[in-house]
Amino acid sequence: MNFFSRFWQTLKSFLNPAGWTGRFGALLQRGKKTALPEPKEAVPEPPVKQHGPSVVRQYEEHPSEAYMELKYRFRDIGRMGAIAETMGRDFLTAMPEGAWRARLGQIAFLHRRMHEDLTRLDIKHLLDRAKTHAENHSEDWDAWDKANLREMEEMHNRQSPVEGELVEKRARLSYEGRRRHRDALAASDWPAAREFLAEMVDMNRQIAEAKCRAGGGNSYYQALMSEYMPGISVTEVEDWFGTLDKKIGKMLPQILKKQAQQKELVSLKDFYPAKAQMWLNHALLESLGFDFHRGGLYETGHNPVEGGTPDDTRLVIKNVDINDFTDSMKSALHEGGHGLYIQGLPRKTWRYQPVAQDMGAAVHESQALLVEMIMGRTRSFYDFLAPRVEGLFHGLHNPALSAENLYGLKTKVQPGLLRKKADEVTYFFHMKHRFELERDLIEGKLKPSALPEAWNGKMNDILGIQPEGVADGCLQDVHWFVGKFGYFPAYTVGHMYAAQLYEKICKDIPDTGKLIAAGDFLPITNWLGEKVHAQGRLYGFTDLVKNSTGSELSPAPLLKHLETRYCA
Amino acid sequence: MNFFSRFWQTLKSFLNPAGWTGRFGALLQRGKKTALPEPKEAVPEPPVKQHGPSVVRQYEEHPSEAYMELKYRFRDIGRMGAIAETMGRDFLTAMPEGAWRARLGQIAFLHRRMHEDLTRLDIKHLLDRAKTHAENHSEDWDAWDKANLREMEEMHNRQSPVEGELVEKRARLSYEGRRRHRDALAASDWPAAREFLAEMVDMNRQIAEAKCRAGGGNSYYQALMSEYMPGISVTEVEDWFGTLDKKIGKMLPQILKKQAQQKELVSLKDFYPAKAQMWLNHALLESLGFDFHRGGLYETGHNPVEGGTPDDTRLVIKNVDINDFTDSMKSALHEGGHGLYIQGLPRKTWRYQPVAQDMGAAVHESQALLVEMIMGRTRSFYDFLAPRVEGLFHGLHNPALSAENLYGLKTKVQPGLLRKKADEVTYFFHMKHRFELERDLIEGKLKPSALPEAWNGKMNDILGIQPEGVADGCLQDVHWFVGKFGYFPAYTVGHMYAAQLYEKICKDIPDTGKLIAAGDFLPITNWLGEKVHAQGRLYGFTDLVKNSTGSELSPAPLLKHLETRYCA
Repeated sequence: MNFFSRFWQTLKSFLNPAGWTGRFGALLQRGKKTALPEPKEAVPEPPVKQHGPSVVRQYEEHPSEAYMELKYRFRDIGRMGAIAETMGRDFLTAMPEGAWRARLGQIAFLHRRMHEDLTRLDIKHLLDRAKTHAENHSEDWDAWDKANLREMEEMHNRQSPVEGELVEKRARLSYEGRRRHRDALAASDWPAAREFLAEMVDMNRQIAEAKCRAGGGNSYYQALMSEYMPGISVTEVEDWFGTLDKKIGKMLPQILKKQAQQKELVSLKDFYPAKAQMWLNHALLESLGFDFHRGGLYETGHNPVEGGTPDDTRLVIKNVDINDFTDSMKSALHEGGHGLYIQGLPRKTWRYQPVAQDMGAAVHESQALLVEMIMGRTRSFYDFLAPRVEGLFHGLHNPALSAENLYGLKTKVQPGLLRKKADEVTYFFHMKHRFELERDLIEGKLKPSALPEAWNGKMNDILGIQPEGVADGCLQDVHWFVGKFGYFPAYTVGHMYAAQLYEKICKDIPDTGKLIAAGDFLPITNWLGEKVHAQGRLYGFTDLVKNSTGSELSPAPLLKHLETRYCA
Repeated sequence: MNFFSRFWQTLKSFLNPAGWTGRFGALLQRGKKTALPEPKEAVPEPPVKQHGPSVVRQYEEHPSEAYMELKYRFRDIGRMGAIAETMGRDFLTAMPEGAWRARLGQIAFLHRRMHEDLTRLDIKHLLDRAKTHAENHSEDWDAWDKANLREMEEMHNRQSPVEGELVEKRARLSYEGRRRHRDALAASDWPAAREFLAEMVDMNRQIAEAKCRAGGGNSYYQALMSEYMPGISVTEVEDWFGTLDKKIGKMLPQILKKQAQQKELVSLKDFYPAKAQMWLNHALLESLGFDFHRGGLYETGHNPVEGGTPDDTRLVIKNVDINDFTDSMKSALHEGGHGLYIQGLPRKTWRYQPVAQDMGAAVHESQALLVEMIMGRTRSFYDFLAPRVEGLFHGLHNPALSAENLYGLKTKVQPGLLRKKADEVTYFFHMKHRFELERDLIEGKLKPSALPEAWNGKMNDILGIQPEGVADGCLQDVHWFVGKFGYFPAYTVGHMYAAQLYEKICKDIPDTGKLIAAGDFLPITNWLGEKVHAQGRLYGFTDLVKNSTGSELSPAPLLKHLETRYCA
């Protein structure tokens, strides 16, 4: 009955005519464009405070007619995006196997439609009219409206150079690639993978070429990377990577030497029932403030996917390893970081508008890595976790489950072949490795057919180890199979930003460590919600970093963090 | 590994460039409109034979350019319909609770878009051009093309009179209504239901009015009923209902008298674990030929929903009653009948085209009732079922589970308050009851606020019994809450058609009874597949009935069936 009465409250408030006046009432009178407005909310308050503006800005009247019209257009484009997200999530979690081909067509169709709507000629006219209005009546445009208009134009410009067909093909192949990768990886089948990968590289080069032609740039890789990290240049990335390479390269042997002298760790290998693991993952995300009323956590045979919308954030992690509970926990914390970001976007106010979207891969990964690697590998976190897992997994006084041992295991540094199993220190080298390879693939300097050799050679140069096959080599990651070229550097940039954010959090919130040790994560999530999540795309990347941390993005905080945790 | 190798086969065939030549190759060269064609199939053959045309007609070149363009337009409209189906299924099965309002907006948006695409001015021009071509070059148009064009025009004409806003509102309220009904029913809350129902009646009267204005008809009810049963008039329904009323009315007291003299039945009430019930339901549907490779069966708290697409047919039944396994079985058989119909539509050939759609509610319900009530209540069916459920539910020699007793229980006639619990004989009276009420509601002769009184009075007149409250009275069905006015007669028309089909099946397939007793249902499903499912909308309703059964639709076969089963 609790559910029913809760739901009934919602309905009553929706039925109440008073809820339809004001902005909604005005809207109803506009007629055609909008049909029914979103009903008012009366759902239970989510665990995390809602930050940012509190007025429903998406439907708020604005003196610029062109801008109002754009808001309606972008609402519908945003809706299509949300629909595509749900169709994609269903694809991975619930869809009957035999529906997959038809589903590819449906998802691709949605992307073509979005592209058509975004690149219509009259969108350009509307943008011009709205911009003129903004110049002549700047008093009518607050920072959010200005940012929203800027992002509208940005989306229009980003999509316009690319043909609709190519957009449709990319959407189709990216979902297909997820399945292709799963199968090629399971069968260690490089010939099958190679053919598909070549098609993917080729298609992405075509997209990059179109973008370069339209935008005047001449780096294919920059054109693609900008989709994931708008506002960051390849030169900047190369600079940061150069510094990190040198400094972490110097740090690594010292750490290995130091850790070799430490007391031996107890292996975690044991039987951890899948259900108990998923309970733990669920409970940890709940403690972090993830709102399961509008989200979920699923386990599938696919690689994890971040995504969804603030209304419907269903996280997906890969099969649970029943011999190591920290594997799924790590994955859940990572996806949970993404999920908190998505759920914290300005949902009630700007919902489908461009300004309400996330800032792209670098900020997204910063949120994921902050939870997974920075907070999730503090000694405090294991002080909180250890006694609970002793109970959960029936291991009272089990030395493997002590806080000291868990912390030791999760901060153990060891060059390895797999990115996903990498420790926090060597993690960077995996990114550098992939960044250089994908840059060469896209710039045409490396042929897809030569990838395994190039992969192995570079891995040997960088970490001094070599894969035995393709499964622990160039097939281990799904990214290129779903067409994500230019994404990998976002992990490192995200790691840098995460370390910089955490430094600021520790300054702003007294006793951060004590809070974590008590499992009291909400003050941290709330801080992030206010400074990062609720900002949507109000600022560009540079300003977001400056506003949230007080200084420009730099590799220094990450280096300092690694030094403190691993060298001290 | 079995799954991976199967999937790998599919991928290989898709990778094979030979699969892209011919019709697909030609299509690729057409460029813009089509982007990637659907990849070829190499999935395991479904249990039920695929009937109907075997060429991919959706993309087949046609000399009429206007018709080709229409085929692409309607493919996309069909895709949007399929997307809306999946979004609706997700809404009922997997969506996080908090996403529901945003989801209503998304589904309503899709319906508005479909409406926009369907009613565009240039669709009318294209239809005119294609029709002229068909008249002047009839040699280029086979029966399927002609029917497809006819159905395109039909869809355009059906949607055009109704404003986009109203379409959007209807879609939104119909999904919202499902939840409103669930809650009002659980709380027996008539005041809440009344308000919503009044809005629903009002909106449907507006829709009917627009249709009457455009089409020249003057019966609101006819305008709405035609959406569910195109080609059937209210006068016909009233005639059939008159005959059935008289004849079944005469039969009923005789049956009651006869059954009162029969040996007492053993009650089924016991504990039947939900999991075992769902296994049984799943297994029965599999035996019937339902293809779980492209479908599923779910148990939810919602009322059952038929729907989905041939690629993705996820059936939904309401909570399992752990004290009576035949309750969920009946529901699964009913939804299974719908599902077999959907899966048997001309999927590979015409997929999203109008001619590949189902024939509407009367034919849909005929398929559901044929499985649930006609086949599913034969003595032979219980000869098959009884020994299996003795094992499944751990009741060897349990007298309740004997074939004779199960058959007796499921053919026991007893006037009751609930349509869903009704026996096959009194079932008709529930339809007559609702048909007359909804006709009056829509024609403005009955106010929604007066419904409970009217419901109870009429129930007393027809079956001599009266509900105690609204839960076993006017709130028991979801139909009006999702805006389905004009749907109820489809159950009776479907029942009539089902009896007529079964009469023909028993003539065409020797030993039908023996087959059923052996659980060998496939010959029957195949017969239906060929004569009904695979026909899509090739014929109108009258021709479909004549072609499949050899005579016009008549109440006689249903009356004969009831007499044989209940009076003999």
